[in-house]
Amino acid sequence: MAVYTPVSAADLAAFLAGYGVGSAVSFKGIAEGVENSNFLAETTRGRFILTLYEKRVDAGDLPWFLALMGHLAAKGLPVPGPVADRGGQILQELNGRPACLIEFLPGVSLTEATPAAAREVGAALARMHKALADFTTPRPNALGPASWPPLAARCANESGNSRLGEIDADLPQAVERGLAAAADWPAGLPQSAIHADLFPDNVLMLDGKVTGLIDFYFACTDARAYDVAVTHAAWCFSADGRQFFAERAAGLMAGYLAEIDLLPAERAALPRLAAGAALRFTLTRAYDWLNTPAGALVTRKDPMAFARRLTWYLDSTPEMMLGG
Amino acid sequence: MAVYTPVSAADLAAFLAGYGVGSAVSFKGIAEGVENSNFLAETTRGRFILTLYEKRVDAGDLPWFLALMGHLAAKGLPVPGPVADRGGQILQELNGRPACLIEFLPGVSLTEATPAAAREVGAALARMHKALADFTTPRPNALGPASWPPLAARCANESGNSRLGEIDADLPQAVERGLAAAADWPAGLPQSAIHADLFPDNVLMLDGKVTGLIDFYFACTDARAYDVAVTHAAWCFSADGRQFFAERAAGLMAGYLAEIDLLPAERAALPRLAAGAALRFTLTRAYDWLNTPAGALVTRKDPMAFARRLTWYLDSTPEMMLGG
Repeated sequence: MAVYTPVSAADLAAFLAGYGVGSAVSFKGIAEGVENSNFLAETTRGRFILTLYEKRVDAGDLPWFLALMGHLAAKGLPVPGPVADRGGQILQELNGRPACLIEFLPGVSLTEATPAAAREVGAALARMHKALADFTTPRPNALGPASWPPLAARCANESGNSRLGEIDADLPQAVERGLAAAADWPAGLPQSAIHADLFPDNVLMLDGKVTGLIDFYFACTDARAYDVAVTHAAWCFSADGRQFFAERAAGLMAGYLAEIDLLPAERAALPRLAAGAALRFTLTRAYDWLNTPAGALVTRKDPMAFARRLTWYLDSTPEMMLGG
Repeated sequence: MAVYTPVSAADLAAFLAGYGVGSAVSFKGIAEGVENSNFLAETTRGRFILTLYEKRVDAGDLPWFLALMGHLAAKGLPVPGPVADRGGQILQELNGRPACLIEFLPGVSLTEATPAAAREVGAALARMHKALADFTTPRPNALGPASWPPLAARCANESGNSRLGEIDADLPQAVERGLAAAADWPAGLPQSAIHADLFPDNVLMLDGKVTGLIDFYFACTDARAYDVAVTHAAWCFSADGRQFFAERAAGLMAGYLAEIDLLPAERAALPRLAAGAALRFTLTRAYDWLNTPAGALVTRKDPMAFARRLTWYLDSTPEMMLGG
């Protein structure tokens, strides 16, 4: 939540000169996205987000992410489309970083979902999946089930002993149960390009409607039902994971199912997929927790918030996930 | 350069309900100001900056700062005016912090000044001083000459030995010379409310004109010529302080003098005042440098950038400061 690479007024003017978007009227670094530097640039012709991609994003993946966003924007989905320069180029370099000018979308991110908002988000997710039926270039999910055992192993000290217990006494067992469950991963489910990170911060809303799905930098090809599971884990619990909100879950799933009628195999797989999603966030948060200096100004996100969801999903049924 | 206190969509909606400014259309945390949390809030009726004041700002000073900004905005100066709520109140509390909704001003901060930009800034500074002739409530300058010897003393270890030499071998002598010069501080100069921190980041420009003077949270009552000296030190050197740009200085001073004809005593005092201004930034940067953990994500600002200016001013004349 910071600007890592500064961009001066002169840098901006030179950058914008390559586009047909007018000249800068206002320019603010914004605290959005954990991985990249983002600026809100207003020009004489409109408003844009300028993103400089920092080290954690693989530059080789950017053309795929930007093509995905462009595909969805062109179909009228509420997704910010990348803007091409006068030469038709989308991906640029600025101050030593890959960079892209992207449409600005209105809306405000919810901090806590209501059932009605969850329904809108479920519907928006399904419409996104439908619009991606003809987006067939694959990108493997680098944070899929195969990555979880090695990621758990990296949460160990030099002697190979797990450090998860340093974070919370309940964490080692939750991860162990999650890994055991994920070893029997649902196969053969319908695939799609998926968002894979549709948390409330990545959804903009206005007057109860979704106006923006943003931050596609974890997007990949995977089971569409896994995207539903990630979104379920992100929207249907209290922040600390202690409380499940059945009405939000009912809203989210009703919104999705009104657009896409999940197959019986997908419905049956939901608890296992959601446990996997919760394990993915538990592990990435645990790794970051163990590798973030205590004095750093970055807010560490508590892995237990997702370990609790993981435990809930391991004991859940498809009916429970639908809020029944 | 971060958001220290988060504000949720629900917090914002409840806050805005107290105003007659419509409801939120967009809301972004912005990386502006070192001390406070700032958000760009667009509503159905306009655009605003929402500022939450963090610990380093004394809440008791806020009414004075906000009155100053309101005074200047009401006179048509390019200063963001605080917005009153439906009950006429300007200063609020939000999430445990003092908070204020402030007009949004267009413009982009220059990183490096041109002589023409410096002239506009000089003129804007003088027009601000003129508009403050009837703003007579005083606020002492907490970072004035009386504060510099104790601040230098706080840059010492527990045994009382100065740590300035840990930063740079040239720093102790520069500070010593600066303190000696400041002991003979110019008295009896015309006073005004002054900005006292008019660095390029605190000036917004558009099409070569000043559209915003911002960040008044170091403002105080002091010699108006001291404000000129601070602005001179901020605008007329390379970032590292190694190079003086006479043309920028000529522009800045011509712009100011076209609006306010400084008295002979003020002109004569300029080198001493500017050495003091350079000492003030050298000392606050040195203190922050010595007290910022090396691993922290806050960018430490190099005290030598101002120690070099200090040395330059100690050897300068009023003519040199005017770019002659």
